[in-house]
Amino acid sequence: MEKFAEKTISKETIYEGRIIDLSIHDVTLPNGETSKREIVTHPGAVAVIAVTEDNKLLLVRQFRKPLEKTIAEIPAGKLEKGEDPLPCAKRELEEETGFLAGKWTSLGSFYTSPGFADELIYLFLAEELSDGTANTDEDEFVECFEVTIDEARKLMDNQEIHDAKTIIAIQYLQLLHR
Amino acid sequence: MEKFAEKTISKETIYEGRIIDLSIHDVTLPNGETSKREIVTHPGAVAVIAVTEDNKLLLVRQFRKPLEKTIAEIPAGKLEKGEDPLPCAKRELEEETGFLAGKWTSLGSFYTSPGFADELIYLFLAEELSDGTANTDEDEFVECFEVTIDEARKLMDNQEIHDAKTIIAIQYLQLLHR
Repeated sequence: MEKFAEKTISKETIYEGRIIDLSIHDVTLPNGETSKREIVTHPGAVAVIAVTEDNKLLLVRQFRKPLEKTIAEIPAGKLEKGEDPLPCAKRELEEETGFLAGKWTSLGSFYTSPGFADELIYLFLAEELSDGTANTDEDEFVECFEVTIDEARKLMDNQEIHDAKTIIAIQYLQLLHR
Repeated sequence: MEKFAEKTISKETIYEGRIIDLSIHDVTLPNGETSKREIVTHPGAVAVIAVTEDNKLLLVRQFRKPLEKTIAEIPAGKLEKGEDPLPCAKRELEEETGFLAGKWTSLGSFYTSPGFADELIYLFLAEELSDGTANTDEDEFVECFEVTIDEARKLMDNQEIHDAKTIIAIQYLQLLHR
């Protein structure tokens, strides 16, 4: 259903960065008029719902500069160029939490901000956890902890959990265990 | 818990646009080293879980240029400068769907992409719908339709629904009606 499609007439690259790029597209609208679209390009990411044997969820606390605050999120990380989501998810889980998982299930994907960015997050369920080796990127400082679903709901209420992927994860577990 | 806080040493504004701005911050890390953070600034947005009397969810189809595809999302829109979320939600619901709502409930907020953007979405539940006047922005082309929760799950499976806020909305309704 692409009757609303907007065709790019011209494109200006504003910035090519370490993680994101920014470009401005002049587009033709369905009514023949033109408009500008500001588009952030992102490599995509993975996020992991990692559940312990006693049904606790692994979270990582991390300072998020765009928000100027520390929040608790499910483990996540950007895809390297050409990397498949599953190996990336395995790597990010071990790096950020120190855990390996014996059982992995793909839960699909979602765009985070379709109005201005192409970031796509691939979501995985990780079970049968065992000890691996935590080892974060040199500019990444995280703290891993475990919560019950009830504790996670309380962290949502006080906005320590405050991002879309982690809310999706908690709702997913609530629906799974209802 | 700001022990991981990253302090801005200097900031370069790359772009100031119609909807988003982009800046690069040189920051001091917790270990004393420095790094760069690419930060997209966004005015924030609202999204509306609008439910009809027979428990159907209102969705809008819209072409999303960053994804180069049309997806179905819950009604949503950007905050105007200084605008409160609730009046914005009322405006966006009527503009995009042609419906007014007699009962509004705030469901909190979430960040969409905390790694690189400060976009915060305020989520509302809208009930007791009645006819208003659809009237979208001049560069906005949307098509409103209604689905049952089961139909919404199928749209998720075939990725016609493919964004975080709409998945949060569907899971919210599933949990509400369990």
